Amino acid sequence: MNKLLIVGSVAFDAIETPFGKTDKILGGAGTYIGLSASFFKHQTAIVSVVGEDFPQEYLDLLTARNIDVSAIEIVKGGKTFFWSGRYHNDLNSRDTLVTELNTLADFEPKVPENFKDADVVMLGNLHPLTQISVLDQLTKAPKLVVLDTMNFWMDCALSELKQVIARVDVITVNDEEARQLTGEYSLVKAAAKIQEMGPKFVVIKKGEHGALLFHEKQIFFAPALPLEEVFDPTGAGDTFAGGFTGYIAQSENISFENMKNAIIYGSNMASFCVEEFGTKRMERLQKEEVLERLQQFRALTQFDIALEK
Amino acid sequence: MNKLLIVGSVAFDAIETPFGKTDKILGGAGTYIGLSASFFKHQTAIVSVVGEDFPQEYLDLLTARNIDVSAIEIVKGGKTFFWSGRYHNDLNSRDTLVTELNTLADFEPKVPENFKDADVVMLGNLHPLTQISVLDQLTKAPKLVVLDTMNFWMDCALSELKQVIARVDVITVNDEEARQLTGEYSLVKAAAKIQEMGPKFVVIKKGEHGALLFHEKQIFFAPALPLEEVFDPTGAGDTFAGGFTGYIAQSENISFENMKNAIIYGSNMASFCVEEFGTKRMERLQKEEVLERLQQFRALTQFDIALEK
Repeated sequence: MNKLLIVGSVAFDAIETPFGKTDKILGGAGTYIGLSASFFKHQTAIVSVVGEDFPQEYLDLLTARNIDVSAIEIVKGGKTFFWSGRYHNDLNSRDTLVTELNTLADFEPKVPENFKDADVVMLGNLHPLTQISVLDQLTKAPKLVVLDTMNFWMDCALSELKQVIARVDVITVNDEEARQLTGEYSLVKAAAKIQEMGPKFVVIKKGEHGALLFHEKQIFFAPALPLEEVFDPTGAGDTFAGGFTGYIAQSENISFENMKNAIIYGSNMASFCVEEFGTKRMERLQKEEVLERLQQFRALTQFDIALEK
Repeated sequence: MNKLLIVGSVAFDAIETPFGKTDKILGGAGTYIGLSASFFKHQTAIVSVVGEDFPQEYLDLLTARNIDVSAIEIVKGGKTFFWSGRYHNDLNSRDTLVTELNTLADFEPKVPENFKDADVVMLGNLHPLTQISVLDQLTKAPKLVVLDTMNFWMDCALSELKQVIARVDVITVNDEEARQLTGEYSLVKAAAKIQEMGPKFVVIKKGEHGALLFHEKQIFFAPALPLEEVFDPTGAGDTFAGGFTGYIAQSENISFENMKNAIIYGSNMASFCVEEFGTKRMERLQKEEVLERLQQFRALTQFDIALEK
């Protein structure tokens, strides 16, 4: 069975949307990636850090999904990373209300011995030097390294970010980040420039407008599923990345053709994530629902135009 | 051969984009719809009005595309409708600089005798009462009536607009217009409400983010082709409508499955329109290029996920 190594925050979130608000609930990129990836067959571990205030039940929830949590360090007397945000009415933008880095501030990731030969590595959004440290600990070149990052690191750690970008196979960014990183408004041009920086595959996430996969001159597009109601977008991008890498790890195939399937699965998983607050929907999601929604993605996108005489 | 009746403005445009500006050039919804639809096999006429200042060469250009221009009334001493606009840097929004209705102000459409039994009717964006007048002149129920409209009529002629909406099979609006018309932010909910107003099929255009087709509980999505450069978005929506109705008229099939193909062709045609100023690209477009681009749409959207054990 392929090994999938996930690095990312395991955290507390407090979320306000037009539909309601939560107290501190389970959150973090590593959590969302792990929950989403767990719907596919592979051996998985999350490398992360939390404080002593982090409830055992949250770790048990991940363990129940066959995720190895032994590399989630619990810092004695430390407090868990906490983020709080408020979404605007259209849910497409949000204000950060609180960011308490806490134990994440001094996070030194330690890759477990049995995952230093991971087949697929998913570098969730963290300081680029943390992401590099993970790559440096690997003893075997992975089949695929996927990087997620955000505009924050482009603003304050661009040189380090470029170092890690140069070392990965796939990068996932949103449309605005792709533009910021390259100075190109056209996403086609931006994706070409990012490929010059290292990654052979570029995934540009457009939220409710879907995601584009670029590789050399090829482009594939996965729409977001049109939903009656988006309840809470938190974690959608990470859930997308989890579906993407989880499917790749299971299928052991890193061709462009198979990556098309992977981003369809990424969109599929993300379409569930946004239906309820936080991780709630992902926690009770069943594999049958994922396969059923795959049929919806087919109906949404597949057509059959007869060739004309 | 099926008959396609097009009603829409035939006009002068002056356009400014970040890439340059034009003097008065050929424009108008009817023009773009006609040029785009002319790539498919059917008998076509445009009902419209122009002034004496309208160059014969522009009419000849339409005639050369096998479009019957005899129902484009030329008002003696009148001036042709003129619109001028300036696009913002992202090309997603624009300011109207000049609108001179001229002969369009008193336009009374006259459907030619031999098109009163048209199979497909495309009501381009005009005053709803003008659109209703066209429907009232038909002697046989068309197989399909398609309506395009805009927010302007929602602001100033909502009651008349609702009358025409109740009488058509397909409506095309953009995402903001769908929201304004229904008060629903979710496009899924908005499309359901619009179906209650009459049209069995709702097309919601999202510009560079593609187009959605709704029918009862079914949804289909056609992406816009990701382009290195969008030069001038003028007429893209009309070109989309022309590809949509032109394909339907040719294929003589108004099933949901065939409408999927029609919106793919709509997106296909629109992807050419935006590549140059005004109608320039559509004027020199070849059928072979359209078929070649259809392959790009296939590559962009078609996937093949094996069913899991």
